Amino acid sequence: MSAPARGRGRRPGGPDTRGAILLAARRSFADKGFGSTTIRAVAAEAEVDPALVHHYFGSKDDLFLAALEIPVDPRALLPTVFEGGVTGAGERLLRIFLSVWDDPRARLPLIALVRSSLVQEGPESLLQQGILRMILDPLRTALPSAEADRRVQLVISQMAGLVMARYLLALEPLASMPTEEVVAWVAPTLQRYLDGPLPAG
Amino acid sequence: MSAPARGRGRRPGGPDTRGAILLAARRSFADKGFGSTTIRAVAAEAEVDPALVHHYFGSKDDLFLAALEIPVDPRALLPTVFEGGVTGAGERLLRIFLSVWDDPRARLPLIALVRSSLVQEGPESLLQQGILRMILDPLRTALPSAEADRRVQLVISQMAGLVMARYLLALEPLASMPTEEVVAWVAPTLQRYLDGPLPAG
Repeated sequence: MSAPARGRGRRPGGPDTRGAILLAARRSFADKGFGSTTIRAVAAEAEVDPALVHHYFGSKDDLFLAALEIPVDPRALLPTVFEGGVTGAGERLLRIFLSVWDDPRARLPLIALVRSSLVQEGPESLLQQGILRMILDPLRTALPSAEADRRVQLVISQMAGLVMARYLLALEPLASMPTEEVVAWVAPTLQRYLDGPLPAG
Repeated sequence: MSAPARGRGRRPGGPDTRGAILLAARRSFADKGFGSTTIRAVAAEAEVDPALVHHYFGSKDDLFLAALEIPVDPRALLPTVFEGGVTGAGERLLRIFLSVWDDPRARLPLIALVRSSLVQEGPESLLQQGILRMILDPLRTALPSAEADRRVQLVISQMAGLVMARYLLALEPLASMPTEEVVAWVAPTLQRYLDGPLPAG
């Protein structure tokens, strides 16, 4: 599908323009996935100039977070995790994670994202290409490169399991466990995955 | 819906009887969930005597595992976890978990179960009422009762996270990590959740 000729049929910037872009973006991410969605195609579907999409929403990552109504930005939150070095990073990461997931405004769209992504097959899902990448990349850069991927994925495995058990399945008493108790149980796990000794062999 | 009168319209035991029962059971678990499925209603839909369902498949739990084509029985596997006491139970549990999930014959139906259950809301899902209960109950009985639920749910959180990261999302290198390396990383986590000191407060 080619974009309409410049200046023809384009919606001017206005009160409903933002909404039209978000609607087009939401449809494209859902139908085509993250990788195949482009700012240009979203703009064409919303009948606006691509520059207006950038103006309102910034990058494709920004547009993704806005379209899925995820009110937190992992790229802004995560750099603080390693500000004091790797020591204590497990606890800092877990506290950020819990503050996001314990907030219903963030939890509900995130649950919708996890649910829709788990129904799809493989690494093309919005969860993996959209959000997980924004989380994995900043964590990875803070660790020795030879071990970074496996350490970060083990961290993700424990956090993904909390998503399942505490937020999706809502197992009690885990679902109602106070933050400080979750931190006391789980932060040592994340910390060991981040900087514990590598298993022999 | 009342069951048909005894002896009328019932299918006799025969080569297609087992298949008819499984089909009826699969439909009922999918449509009504685990709690609302009864042997009697499955028998009525398959047009057989309820006694025949028991004869072929045993209990409702057995019928559930057969209908979902899950070739392992958590109730048979899990008692060995605590045979040597709680010491080493984390590793024994993890080895059973990995042997099941690393076997494609078990993994594929389990992934289908997890996917379908995560789309549903709340504790009525087949995952929770069907399988998770068969796993949680034997683990819980082996631990001090006041702490059993939270310890077992933390264990489940790490195992559920492995399901997500290693098997559903299939993140590399975690998805291809050899069993011994997964055990070396993750067994200490499970062991601490099972018998580590309770957090203060």
